[in-house]
Amino acid sequence: MAKSSEGTSALTRVLAVLDAFTTDAPFLTLTQIHRRSGIPLSSVHRIAAELVDHGLLEPAAGRTYRLGNRLWEIGSKTPGALGLREIAEPYLRRLHDIAGQHVQLGVRIGTDVLIIERISAPDAVINGSIVGGRIPIQHSTSGLVFLAFGEPELLDAVIAQGIHPVTSAGPGTADALRAEVDATRRRGYALADGWIHPASRGLAVPVRGSEDVVVGALGAVIPNDASSPRRAATLLQETAHRISDALLRAYLPASHPRALPGGSLRALVASSAESMRYLERRARVR
Amino acid sequence: MAKSSEGTSALTRVLAVLDAFTTDAPFLTLTQIHRRSGIPLSSVHRIAAELVDHGLLEPAAGRTYRLGNRLWEIGSKTPGALGLREIAEPYLRRLHDIAGQHVQLGVRIGTDVLIIERISAPDAVINGSIVGGRIPIQHSTSGLVFLAFGEPELLDAVIAQGIHPVTSAGPGTADALRAEVDATRRRGYALADGWIHPASRGLAVPVRGSEDVVVGALGAVIPNDASSPRRAATLLQETAHRISDALLRAYLPASHPRALPGGSLRALVASSAESMRYLERRARVR
Repeated sequence: MAKSSEGTSALTRVLAVLDAFTTDAPFLTLTQIHRRSGIPLSSVHRIAAELVDHGLLEPAAGRTYRLGNRLWEIGSKTPGALGLREIAEPYLRRLHDIAGQHVQLGVRIGTDVLIIERISAPDAVINGSIVGGRIPIQHSTSGLVFLAFGEPELLDAVIAQGIHPVTSAGPGTADALRAEVDATRRRGYALADGWIHPASRGLAVPVRGSEDVVVGALGAVIPNDASSPRRAATLLQETAHRISDALLRAYLPASHPRALPGGSLRALVASSAESMRYLERRARVR
Repeated sequence: MAKSSEGTSALTRVLAVLDAFTTDAPFLTLTQIHRRSGIPLSSVHRIAAELVDHGLLEPAAGRTYRLGNRLWEIGSKTPGALGLREIAEPYLRRLHDIAGQHVQLGVRIGTDVLIIERISAPDAVINGSIVGGRIPIQHSTSGLVFLAFGEPELLDAVIAQGIHPVTSAGPGTADALRAEVDATRRRGYALADGWIHPASRGLAVPVRGSEDVVVGALGAVIPNDASSPRRAATLLQETAHRISDALLRAYLPASHPRALPGGSLRALVASSAESMRYLERRARVR
């Protein structure tokens, strides 16, 4: 892609503009975008105008801009995030009906966990995670899941960033983190008491896709009350197995006796059985 | 942004590559991207390599690519889609517990409705809508909501595209569509029996934000059984009022007595009350 005089590509600059918007700053003026992105103000003007033309930015009140619904639409077609979320959602919902508090589903981006779904109760304990937000792998039980059951190189990459616990309860050295990863493997689930906030305990288990690859982490955030975590861990494990089973059946050829209805759409869509058959027929016609 | 020899901008070409991926084709080879986007194969190679570098595309099985989780992450920060969805979700859930079948929430992009959330039951009737998918305004009850209660110019834009009903039950002329818009205004809700499929009835009502602007459409898809739609319409209207109230309270200054806890984060996040206070404090410190 074309390079600017500073040698950065057009795409890099567009992403810097989009990344200036965060969950706690969803509305920004052009000057604020310039300050947060480091892109020269004149370039911000030009890029923003083109992004508005394409619906990727939308003008909002007080000369601010917000990310556009077109971006949400493009993002909604990612199998690794929305596809997994759509398939897992009814199972998360059932788990939340039994367990209450917060239940959540994360995927890995680099050395962070990206939260793709979270169901909470109004009176649940403190939870630092938000849908669309990231948590560093070293701070979270979902991260421990990727360290314990995911790619072996990941632990070195996390340790190379330095260990920076949020609270004194979190691992403070590379050896302490390694010990937590070993304990997670032994237990079959990750447990973290007060790593993010003293009032909260995290629990997480792997969600596996085809060839048993870990595609996500299913977690719960519950009160840190020194009770046994066994019941919650068992519920999480049973739910993760059901999600893995639904994922595998979603990718089976339609002719397979265990395949879910919905054929080529399954990776992204979960609707009623009748609707899946209807959508499948409609997709075939096109 | 830099123009190619054909005069299209780099961003236009990137979006053409991303738009080649659809719900029923989430995995594509470079050749398939080239055919679907019309971008020359050599440019597709170059653009795809850069998109992979930025995590916007991810390599998948069989030399295919899929949209990357980074895209979902960026899209998850759009207030008009994810913010509305997060705030509306508990109300949609309660409505679904009572009404069953399909309940869904849509926003407008041009002359289409983009579905941002849908909750279904396994035994619900046929519903052609999928999360992240679009339905033309003229085919849907959510569309009627935007025509009846949204910007006045919209009806002319829809009629200018020509009227193309999906089934013989849908309006087949501009006058017939106008009559449905008038009926929707009189009733206060949109009703469509069998417009998408003979077995299904659609109902939808407006969700209003600040200054009573229509920001979304709350809909239900139920059996098309000639029963009175009153009870379902009343449930939808009550739920839409609750969502509008929560939206308004989400954007009030924290000092206001009716404001929800969560301050600057409210537009995008809905978690437990304790978590909202925690996230707000954390955002203030940064």
